[in-house]
Formats: sequence, C-alpha cells, structure tokens
Amino acid sequence: MGREEDKVKGFKFAARAAGIRKSGRLDVAMIYSEVPATCAGVFTTNRVVAAPVTVSSPRIRKGLCQAVVLNSGNANACTGDQGLRDALRCAEVASHALGIPEDLVAVSSTGVIGVPLPMEKLERHVSLLPGQLKANEADATAQAIMTTDSFPKMSFSKAEEPEDYAIMGIAKGAGMIHPNMATMLAFVLTDAQVDGDFLDAALRRGVDRSFNIITVDRDTSTNDMVLVLANGLAGNRVILEGDPEAERFERRLQAVLLELAKMIVRDGEGATKLVEIRITGAADLEDARKAAFSVATSNLVKTAFFGEDANWGRIIAAVGYSGAQVDPNRVEIRFEDVVMAHGGIAVGGDSEARATEILKRPEFVVTVDLGLGNGEGAYYTSDLTYDYVKINAAYRT
Amino acid sequence: MGREEDKVKGFKFAARAAGIRKSGRLDVAMIYSEVPATCAGVFTTNRVVAAPVTVSSPRIRKGLCQAVVLNSGNANACTGDQGLRDALRCAEVASHALGIPEDLVAVSSTGVIGVPLPMEKLERHVSLLPGQLKANEADATAQAIMTTDSFPKMSFSKAEEPEDYAIMGIAKGAGMIHPNMATMLAFVLTDAQVDGDFLDAALRRGVDRSFNIITVDRDTSTNDMVLVLANGLAGNRVILEGDPEAERFERRLQAVLLELAKMIVRDGEGATKLVEIRITGAADLEDARKAAFSVATSNLVKTAFFGEDANWGRIIAAVGYSGAQVDPNRVEIRFEDVVMAHGGIAVGGDSEARATEILKRPEFVVTVDLGLGNGEGAYYTSDLTYDYVKINAAYRT
Repeated sequence: MGREEDKVKGFKFAARAAGIRKSGRLDVAMIYSEVPATCAGVFTTNRVVAAPVTVSSPRIRKGLCQAVVLNSGNANACTGDQGLRDALRCAEVASHALGIPEDLVAVSSTGVIGVPLPMEKLERHVSLLPGQLKANEADATAQAIMTTDSFPKMSFSKAEEPEDYAIMGIAKGAGMIHPNMATMLAFVLTDAQVDGDFLDAALRRGVDRSFNIITVDRDTSTNDMVLVLANGLAGNRVILEGDPEAERFERRLQAVLLELAKMIVRDGEGATKLVEIRITGAADLEDARKAAFSVATSNLVKTAFFGEDANWGRIIAAVGYSGAQVDPNRVEIRFEDVVMAHGGIAVGGDSEARATEILKRPEFVVTVDLGLGNGEGAYYTSDLTYDYVKINAAYRT
Repeated sequence: MGREEDKVKGFKFAARAAGIRKSGRLDVAMIYSEVPATCAGVFTTNRVVAAPVTVSSPRIRKGLCQAVVLNSGNANACTGDQGLRDALRCAEVASHALGIPEDLVAVSSTGVIGVPLPMEKLERHVSLLPGQLKANEADATAQAIMTTDSFPKMSFSKAEEPEDYAIMGIAKGAGMIHPNMATMLAFVLTDAQVDGDFLDAALRRGVDRSFNIITVDRDTSTNDMVLVLANGLAGNRVILEGDPEAERFERRLQAVLLELAKMIVRDGEGATKLVEIRITGAADLEDARKAAFSVATSNLVKTAFFGEDANWGRIIAAVGYSGAQVDPNRVEIRFEDVVMAHGGIAVGGDSEARATEILKRPEFVVTVDLGLGNGEGAYYTSDLTYDYVKINAAYRT
C-alpha cells in the first residue's frame, strides 16, 4: 500500500507493539495530519458507551482533529471513572509528544471489556509514536487495530489527476461486537478541502448505506466509531453541499465506506460467505429495510447459507415476521437470477438445483420482491457457521 | 402418562403413521372431546400465515371446538389456494368420520414449508383416527407432532380432589421455527367449566408469561398456535373472571403453559442449557422486557453460555443496545447469587471463578439489575452451540 498512501497528502502513521495484546502484535497506533483537519464522526448508539467514545465524541463535534490515538487488546469499556481518566491521559500524552492542543486529539480503543487499560505500557508507547510517524505506515495502523480480524482492512479512492484529492479508509471488525471484545472502527482520511457541515452530512448518509446495513451477529458494541478527517492539503476549492463536486466526493466517500463494510462482513467471525439481501417492491423504504434486516439477521437463514441450502421457506418466514407489509401471494424470491418462489409458492422444476449451485459461491445476492410498491433496501450478511460458535464460545479462555 | 390422562374427563386421542414423515413415525393425530368445548387460541403474528392457521383461527374465535386434527412432516405453509383447500378438506374428512359439524374441527400442521400436503395419505389416515380414539393416547399424540424435537412435551396439573378439574398440556417445538420446518404448537385440555371470555383472557395472559418469553433463535413461524379447550365435564361451577376460583385456575393454567415453554427451550435445537435472564430495577415493565429480550437473543451471549464463560461484558453490551434506559454506573450483574459486576464495573476477586462454576449447570439464572426503578421481566433462552448450526445447516439435505 506504500505508494498509494503517499497520495493522501499530509497524513502520517505509526504503530507499535506495547504488549497489550499477547504474542508481540502491533497494538497501539497513531494517525496524524500535518495540519488540523476538518472532521466528522458517527459513534455507537449503545447506551453503554466506552470511555474513548465519551472523550472523543465532543472533540470531533467541534469540527477539528489532528491526531487519533488507537489501541487494540483493551476496549476501555465498563471501566468507570478510571477509564475516563485513562482515555484523557492517552490523549494528553499524545498532545504533549506531538506539541499540539489536547482537544485536537481523539482516542479509540477496541478489545476486552471491563478491564482497566495498562497505562504504564500505554503512556510509554504512545509517547514514542510521534517519533516514528511515516506516510507509508497506514497498513501497520490497520494491523494494530485488529482483534479477531483475520486480515487488515483498507480501501483507497485514488486521485485521478495531479490536482485531484484522494480518500483512504482503514477499518477493523469481524462481528458488530466482539466477546467482550468490542468493536467496529473506521477512519477515513482525505486531503480534500471539505466544508464541515457537508462532511458531516455526507458521512452520515454514507454510514447509513454501508456500516448500518451490515450484520454479522446483530450486536452493536460500546466502542463503535467512524471518523473522517479532511485536511485540505490537495488544494482543491472547498467542497460545499450542492456543489457539482460534492456529488462526486460523496460517491467516492460512499464507495470507500461500503468497501470497508463489506470487508467486515467477509471477515465476519467464522463466515465463509458474503450475501447481499436485496428487497424490492416493498410498500415503502422503511418496510424494505425492515424486511432486509429481518432476513439478514435470521439465524435460520444464516445457517441455511452455511449449509448451501436454498431454503426460501426460512426467508419468506423471516420477511413475514419483519413487521413489513407482506402479501404472501405476491412474493417472489430469487437466488441471483434463479426464481425459487413466485406468488408465494415454489416454482419447482430445476430451480432448486440451480439455486444450490449459486449458494456454493463465496458471494451472491438473494432478492425478495414483495410486489407491493417501490420500496427498496439491502443488507449485507454472512453465514452462521461452526467457527462462529467456536470463536465466540472460546474467546476469553 | 396413561393414568393421569384419564383424569381430564371426556378427552380422547389417536395417532397414526401416515407416511408423511420418513421412517414410519407417528405423524397424524386427533384430539377429541366427547362434548363441544369452550375454546380460545393464540396464533402466529407472522404475516405469512400457513393454511391451517387461516382455517382454524376464525373457527376458534367462535368459541367452540370439539376436535383438532394434527399432522407433522408438512406445515402446509406457502402452498397457496391449494393449501387452503387441503386444510379445509382435512377438517371435512374428520367431521364426517366423527359425525360432528365441520366448524367444530380445528386443524394444525408442522413440518416443511412450501410443499403441498400429501392428501391421499392424509384423507385415508384422518378418516381412520376416530375409530381408534382412546383416553390414554395423549403421549402418542405428543409424539405425532414432533419434528426436530428430541422428546415429547406434556405437562399435567392434576385434580386435587375428586370433584376438582384437571389441566393437561401437549406441545411441540425445539426452535421458534424450524428450517423450513415450522413451529411451536401447544394444546391445553381441561375438563373445567370455564367462561369463554375469561378463558380467552387467561390464555392471552398465560402465553404472554410463557411462550412469549422464550427464545431459541428469534424466528417466529408461519404455523405457531396455542389452543385451550375446556369441556366442562368436571362439573364445577362455571369459572368467571373475578371469581375466587378464577385466580387458582389461571395460576394452574399458567404453570402448565410455562412448563411446556421451558421444555421447548430445554429442547432448543442443539441446546445444552436453559438460562433465565431476569431483569430487575428497570425504569418500567416495557424496558425490563426489552432488556431481557436483547440479552436472551444475543448470539454472543448465547455462545458464551455454551463456552461456560461468565462474560458479563457481552451481557451489559446487549442491555446497552436494547433500547431500554440504562445508566452503566448503576448496573449490577449476577450469575445466580454471584455478583460479577457492580456499578457497571468488574467486582473481581473470585467472582469469575465462582460464576464459571454456575455456568457449568444445565439450568441457571442471570440477573441484571438496572438500578433505576421497579420494572421487572424475564426471558428464557438456550445456549448457541455447534449442534444448532449442524441441525439447521443440514436439515433438508
């Protein structure tokens, strides 16, 4: 990734093994912008909020951020007042070492819940991070935030010409929450110059069409956080909502967010398949989302995917209890282009054999047309496997 | 069970192997009352409703029922107009053979979705059931409605003196829905004489505290049905809402329903543990239920139970995203009497070791006290195991 990263101007990265995770893995990292960046953030909706979210959320809301301190191995969640003091102290150590104001530093943690941060290790290693910042260490940062992830997650939208801006994304997650391992984290960095209000709106819309429509196990964590930092060093004219360029920026931001989100599902704990559940013909948008969510989160549907069983009965049942308006006699269910059920009943013939072939693929689309209106929605999900149970039954032991 | 069954006066049973299920198992059955019984029913809330529910629901609503025809192996769901005709025909065949009006016959099916009933087999065997009705064949009926159930489910509330009434319950279910195997079914039979309006109200309250607070996999089926038939042959004075006897009747009905419901969770697909999630101190009743549901349905919590891991971090996270009002600093989490977390943070000491011992039990209670108000609620759940995945990934193949 070294060459592409250079193209997001003014961002530098560092990562170290502080001994928070076992086996000498990278577990602390820093993202730094040479100048304060316009920023926006989306945080967990869980009522139990980890200390780094409590500390970072109001800072991000002010609209400027220059550095993010990251750690894995410990979520600093359910750690009480000590946890808050520790999160603040991490930011303070970074701000001193970087020589920048404390409120320009955000913090982000992922790992075990309910255990205080090992502050001695953290203080020492965080203070050493600024000395090793480099433009081409983004991949080390992506590694340093991994927990049960099996691969680091990065996405890149390149500058198309010399004066164009670039967008880079880094994420972690392999379940909406881990054990008492928390979390989905994503950091999007761009050298574009972007108006703060537009950046905030574009991020919210983008998250709604990416991280908010993926599911591995329905659990949302105490630490979820998506940040975008735009440092303006590409020198473009500031992008405002409604500009012709705004549409292109948002499309590119959305593509980065969606690519990261799909990587998380693909890396879902124990997952072997990435399945898009697409609802069409719903009475309205809300119904389409409800139906897609219901199918995507059904354990019975997810185990059928694992078993490569074109079990449309479980799918129509999940649509039926989703709360969406449904007339069974109008429902059509397709695996890619193979129609399995039409008018709510089996099509028969060789449809099951053909659908079973599609289910052997690592990625496929299941479409449920409700035949009622124009509402459309999608959800990305994984299969539910022996390994999901294994990973989550055995995690802490 | 032969002796106890005799004590629900006037009810007879029959079961046969009609060849709908493989391997010669019992798969059609009949419940018959010597006189028309006052009845009440609760049916699936799934918008995709199987034909037997469509046929039986309005009949039960009229308040009188004398026979129920049951089959396993085929749910007669997603079978269109043919499915409706088939369900009506089953009732018609039974009514002719019994010599009773057609609208006193209810039908109930469980099994594969989307496949038409094998009517030739059904007609022949249903017409033979009346000839073999016996008072002591309730256990055969319980067997005939099994699908992935590993044991037949019956509960009995005996008459305490000669002139007292008895209550018997028969149920099936090992998941809220199966594959495209549907269903949770329960039939409660009593010789008490009960007012219809009170019976209906008592059943709804009872189901709300039994079948509506159990979860194996969150899926509700197209065929779910709970019926209660009260034939009055015990000769007691009719029980009306508000009577002193009404309270006792409802308590006994409730005990039968809860025992059946717990059997279903204990027999949950692949389950090895029955766990009661008890919420106390919630802001209100609604919040208590939301929080209990959220914890009881979390795959991460359920896999931790399987792993015998006293992972309170996953539990507090599930409470946090439940939608209930939560102040993490007031939360206490207990495994039986072992406090694991207090004020939202770990208690430490030997609490984890002691809780781990409790998790080895086949049944235990997890209490989450939210410390906010007087709202209380409970949910019964099972663990999520390798076998759950195995059963549901492999079912149809």
